[in-house]
Amino acid sequence: DPSGNGEEYGEKSILSGFKTTTVLKDSALEKTIFLHGKLDDQEAVVILQKTPIREDTVAEMFSGSRLKLEMRNDIYSTYHLQPPAHLNVIKATVVCPATEKHVKKYQVQESFLVEETGEDYLSITLPYIQEQSFSLQWVFNILEKKAEADRIVYEDPDPDVGFVLLPDFKWDQKQMEDLYLIAIVHRRDLKSLRELTAAHLPLLQNISSKGKGAVLERYGLPASKLRVYLHYQPSYYHLHVHFTALGSEVRGCGVERAHLLSDVVQNLQSDGQHYRKRTLCFPLRADDGLLRKFERAGRL
Amino acid sequence: DPSGNGEEYGEKSILSGFKTTTVLKDSALEKTIFLHGKLDDQEAVVILQKTPIREDTVAEMFSGSRLKLEMRNDIYSTYHLQPPAHLNVIKATVVCPATEKHVKKYQVQESFLVEETGEDYLSITLPYIQEQSFSLQWVFNILEKKAEADRIVYEDPDPDVGFVLLPDFKWDQKQMEDLYLIAIVHRRDLKSLRELTAAHLPLLQNISSKGKGAVLERYGLPASKLRVYLHYQPSYYHLHVHFTALGSEVRGCGVERAHLLSDVVQNLQSDGQHYRKRTLCFPLRADDGLLRKFERAGRL
Repeated sequence: DPSGNGEEYGEKSILSGFKTTTVLKDSALEKTIFLHGKLDDQEAVVILQKTPIREDTVAEMFSGSRLKLEMRNDIYSTYHLQPPAHLNVIKATVVCPATEKHVKKYQVQESFLVEETGEDYLSITLPYIQEQSFSLQWVFNILEKKAEADRIVYEDPDPDVGFVLLPDFKWDQKQMEDLYLIAIVHRRDLKSLRELTAAHLPLLQNISSKGKGAVLERYGLPASKLRVYLHYQPSYYHLHVHFTALGSEVRGCGVERAHLLSDVVQNLQSDGQHYRKRTLCFPLRADDGLLRKFERAGRL
Repeated sequence: DPSGNGEEYGEKSILSGFKTTTVLKDSALEKTIFLHGKLDDQEAVVILQKTPIREDTVAEMFSGSRLKLEMRNDIYSTYHLQPPAHLNVIKATVVCPATEKHVKKYQVQESFLVEETGEDYLSITLPYIQEQSFSLQWVFNILEKKAEADRIVYEDPDPDVGFVLLPDFKWDQKQMEDLYLIAIVHRRDLKSLRELTAAHLPLLQNISSKGKGAVLERYGLPASKLRVYLHYQPSYYHLHVHFTALGSEVRGCGVERAHLLSDVVQNLQSDGQHYRKRTLCFPLRADDGLLRKFERAGRL
């Protein structure tokens, strides 16, 4: 390990065989690019994402970098800095083989806000979810410790109120500023927020208290620095709760899609059927099959 | 120029003499860090910012990088990728000598999530708002057409349910992607969401329907492309409603501070006293006087 940073790099990159066909999304703000292409004749999606600059590496970065002046004006100047390679890794996420659905997921699309009544859920959304039957195998792999077992931060094994807490893929676990964990419930009968009733309060309260406790113990971050919420619609239909650092500006914490766990608990305490009856707003992308279902039903 | 990319790098970096004293801001999302320190005995601010990934360099990046497997699960895998240094420069901006004002400009304040019960509002928050007596003269100037009259997009002059709709300062009105309007109510007796009851449903429904109608007529943007919400805590205590483009990632639309108008209406229809009784979560900055009041009351 010549870089001296305790990591081992293979000499030959399997990604050297990747051929880009289209750029699905290019976020200059977030320094992330989403590519669709072929990896050894298989369809693949590759996401390249520059990593946050770590405070504990800036001293080494300043001493070990090459510098080129770009512009100088009064007290302001800008430079291009070439840091040592091991301080400047890029995170690559590979989905291979990728289906049409994966490709669509990462493609930028216009979104539309849908208002779903309790009846709309039963007549439009639920049949759509059932006919799609998205695979949850990767979730079950986690719950059964067949994958990612070493990433688990905390587990409550109880079959009714238990859950597994682990870092989201989006978080590199290097700094607390963008902490992102997911609590995945052990029970397999809850698709989403829509199906929650007063009967699930013990589950939700358990996730809230034990999840916050685990984050405090493992990462030193108290509940007052956490945003704890569910998505509706979720990206997969097995109940899960997001734990993100309050200060971070992660996607998906917008009011149009996120529901604070503390509000969900209070709503169910006031009315156990709240999420069965309530009209819920959420954005759907232009290419989402569910949007077409709402359009056909004259609900948009 | 051995890197062959047409750039010349000095052998010795003037930044190697930079000593960090504090991290002013660390944006993991934008891969940018703001540092305050000393450069050759002068106060300086240094901003390090990773650069966007360029589409025209990805082929070279894939062929010339070293790769290390991080995680594999089913069709998903993640890697650390060390690209050639010249494809992975960091932009450095230096302000030197920097004044106190430069330092403050880049400083972020930590935020803390507060849980305010209905009683907390009456015993902590309301007295604080009243003793601060923030000036609302600029709001009254708008309502009385003494200022910004030419910016008004729509007005309903009714004293009970009426409002003025105008662009927020953050929006330059150049493109619809980041549309941002504010509806300010004519009545002056409502400080915030906390004071709303079922009696205010006609006001809220009027803002929803006429506000959306005005945005459609003036900007061609339908309700399905709008995020309509209130802040709690608001930045000023005269009731107002935010209208922003659904796709835009504006600050302040996060679930920890924003309340969808459609949810507010439904909550008040279910229980006219909802916002008097409910525990509401919101973030407060470390330098906010209200945070100190909550601390002193032992509520944090």
